[in-house]
Amino acid sequence: MALHPVILSGGSGTRLWPVSRELHPKPFIRLADGETLLQKAFVRAASLDDVADVLTVTNRELFFKTSDDFEALPQARSLTKNYILEPFGRNTAPAVAIAAQYIAASYGDDAVMLVLPADHIVNDQRGFAEAVREAHALALDGRIVVFGVKPHSPETGYGYIEADHNVVKRFVEKPTIDKANEYLASGRFLWNAGMFCFKAGVVLAELAKHSADLASTANDCYSAAKTLSGSDFNQLLLDAETFEQVPDISVDYALAEKSTVLAVVPCDIGWSDVGSWSAISDLSQPDAEGNRVVGDVLIHGSSNCFVQVEEQRVAGLVGVRDLIVIDTPDALLVADRSRSQDVKHIVAQLKLRNHDAYRLHREVHRPWGTYTVLEEGSRFKIKRIVVKPGASLSLQMHHHRSEHWIVVSGTAKVVNGDNELLIYTNESTFIPAGHRHRLENPGVIKLVLIEVQSGEYLGEDDIVRFNDRYGRVEGGTPTS
Amino acid sequence: MALHPVILSGGSGTRLWPVSRELHPKPFIRLADGETLLQKAFVRAASLDDVADVLTVTNRELFFKTSDDFEALPQARSLTKNYILEPFGRNTAPAVAIAAQYIAASYGDDAVMLVLPADHIVNDQRGFAEAVREAHALALDGRIVVFGVKPHSPETGYGYIEADHNVVKRFVEKPTIDKANEYLASGRFLWNAGMFCFKAGVVLAELAKHSADLASTANDCYSAAKTLSGSDFNQLLLDAETFEQVPDISVDYALAEKSTVLAVVPCDIGWSDVGSWSAISDLSQPDAEGNRVVGDVLIHGSSNCFVQVEEQRVAGLVGVRDLIVIDTPDALLVADRSRSQDVKHIVAQLKLRNHDAYRLHREVHRPWGTYTVLEEGSRFKIKRIVVKPGASLSLQMHHHRSEHWIVVSGTAKVVNGDNELLIYTNESTFIPAGHRHRLENPGVIKLVLIEVQSGEYLGEDDIVRFNDRYGRVEGGTPTS
Repeated sequence: MALHPVILSGGSGTRLWPVSRELHPKPFIRLADGETLLQKAFVRAASLDDVADVLTVTNRELFFKTSDDFEALPQARSLTKNYILEPFGRNTAPAVAIAAQYIAASYGDDAVMLVLPADHIVNDQRGFAEAVREAHALALDGRIVVFGVKPHSPETGYGYIEADHNVVKRFVEKPTIDKANEYLASGRFLWNAGMFCFKAGVVLAELAKHSADLASTANDCYSAAKTLSGSDFNQLLLDAETFEQVPDISVDYALAEKSTVLAVVPCDIGWSDVGSWSAISDLSQPDAEGNRVVGDVLIHGSSNCFVQVEEQRVAGLVGVRDLIVIDTPDALLVADRSRSQDVKHIVAQLKLRNHDAYRLHREVHRPWGTYTVLEEGSRFKIKRIVVKPGASLSLQMHHHRSEHWIVVSGTAKVVNGDNELLIYTNESTFIPAGHRHRLENPGVIKLVLIEVQSGEYLGEDDIVRFNDRYGRVEGGTPTS
Repeated sequence: MALHPVILSGGSGTRLWPVSRELHPKPFIRLADGETLLQKAFVRAASLDDVADVLTVTNRELFFKTSDDFEALPQARSLTKNYILEPFGRNTAPAVAIAAQYIAASYGDDAVMLVLPADHIVNDQRGFAEAVREAHALALDGRIVVFGVKPHSPETGYGYIEADHNVVKRFVEKPTIDKANEYLASGRFLWNAGMFCFKAGVVLAELAKHSADLASTANDCYSAAKTLSGSDFNQLLLDAETFEQVPDISVDYALAEKSTVLAVVPCDIGWSDVGSWSAISDLSQPDAEGNRVVGDVLIHGSSNCFVQVEEQRVAGLVGVRDLIVIDTPDALLVADRSRSQDVKHIVAQLKLRNHDAYRLHREVHRPWGTYTVLEEGSRFKIKRIVVKPGASLSLQMHHHRSEHWIVVSGTAKVVNGDNELLIYTNESTFIPAGHRHRLENPGVIKLVLIEVQSGEYLGEDDIVRFNDRYGRVEGGTPTS
């Protein structure tokens, strides 16, 4: 029997700043093995039996970034990628309700959905597959299945499920440390891993029964959504106005705590929600002094630290312990390991100040590739622009700036005023202010070019778009 | 009576990494007020009565950097700048002996020298001037004068002088903490500040008497040196072969501990050797939590930290205390405040690994200005090049790389193969591999250009020089 994984890719992960940003949230955190949490979730789903499609629910701003992550995976090639694109974040229940509508419409009411968060870790894939098989069987029997992870420590950051074999006794919120110790000792409590398995028809019926308002508004939103299909993907684009009517509540609250057809699958699968730098640090092996490093780090007289630095940078640690040091091109975090939950307060301060380091990384993802500001000075700005094979920027014009383009890798096809020309590696062209221009990568390898902008005003909003294959002619996001 | 300040600008300051580097040593450290330690030493000397010239002894590789620092000071304009340029570092006695030869030859045996280290702080300029007047009078009487700073704490990093008014009882090496406490309590001990005042003829005679080998080899070295004069400066270029013969010893050892015409001037002048980040931190006012920051720093639940970050970067501190955090474009230091002396161990590790972050900053000073590598990738390298008004790079050629130059500020005069052309702001030119080229700033404001190099080999040693106004045609330092 086919299984339909649904990846919920939301959440900001403010506790993982400065790597996580509003437009580079927690699922895009790349671990030491080179894979992002989102890629790991996709591989986890794709490696299960009888999976031919994966549905991902995410913010529409993150679609291209998400599909870039998936395209880099060999496991993604043979699967259908479906997407539900939200205009803004709205908790888990709306996402699950609309996903269930989509799955029911596409694959029938009896299609079994496996809901997985995009930003957790499961180290034991075999144990996970085993748990999913058990859940699948229960779901086929008409049950709403939750996954309960056997606790190894008295965590105060997780919700718990009190269980007796497959029977759910009750859900409990994040406990105090005393309660958590009690739960751990009792042997009856499990961590609520935020994963679910059920038939699409069953979850829709249960939602209609226990959360009627959610069910009907989600149905309205599904009906109002637009669809768009590509060669190997389908998009359901939610409409902001109807989506806003859907109550902002969690699956736990809307369904799990109310349903009478619940079942729990207890499991021990190396699960972690990697909710802090301290948790990420725990994923790698320490050296003899308890230090873990990613990148070029020199250590003197220091212990129990986690240090991550960018390529082309070096860090020195002297006489310190229990620190988290995270270095990115524009921002640095130094935190006590035991206080890594409080990183969110730094992010809150940045947000208050409307600081770029809250929203963006220096490397910005666009539908056609990426751009990175290498340097900004008075009257000039230097960017590295990477265009994916076959992709192109919009036909555009700037009033206030001219642009020098130097191709350092690949080939560029350029419209510059009335001319169209090919520019090869190590060649350049000049786009005067007021000239209509378009940049395209006609080749099969990445096009890398250096853009030097000059002019009196270099804001990203000095752009007039004439033509854009990503639908951004009117009111689109700035920057090419 | 004229006074001739002699600034000894040596020493590496490895404990101030990552700001100090082999080619950016401690005197070039810029404090929060925007002045470097070297500039402060120059201003300290230039502000004294009857000063018309300043002699600086430094490494020849640092001449242009040093004169750039001085040229930025209004106080430097009306003074004659003399330089003794060493081929390598060789302790203080050789520098003082050769400086005395130079002063005696230029201004006579009775000329009074005031020897000042380039990398200390004196906060009380009025008290300093008072102490210098007293020393000057003693020097005119034929005395070798040392300066003894009244201690405020039991420092174990300084040498001490036991004194009775102007009489030196004895010099003592860096003490244990018990001894240091004893010295502080006794009221008879002063910190040896490494400053001296004497007649050129007197110090030469005393050296000949007490350190004959030093005196004669320094004399040989002085005789073998070449001189070079500009419009407002004179250089004495020491020859490596004869300089190597001069014993590698300190003034204290060669002279102060042996001379029978010694005198000490006790003083209380806000002196510090700023020998560590902890000492630099102490120079600025803390906030209510004891934190001191330079740059864009957000703090949550942290105390007693010193944090310095670069422009265009932001740092967040969470739940930490007593830390030193120093961030530069290519390197980061995180140290416990009480262990800031141990930073030298990180530098030793970098040196062992022949790591660039030991020798250089990303911004590299050349005689004609600076260059900064903004990014290096496969087959390309991007530099920001700043050329001083009137300066020019050598006429040169590269076998393996071509260069795109885009002027973002100022005007460039360019020789490109057989052509000579002016390139204005926002214009560009292309230098193919194998073309002879020269870059010059013919204007009166700085020329800033972005260079994008491409080619298979981009090492700084792919350069053929035909003509260089800084004498670097044969065997010069690479990079334009």
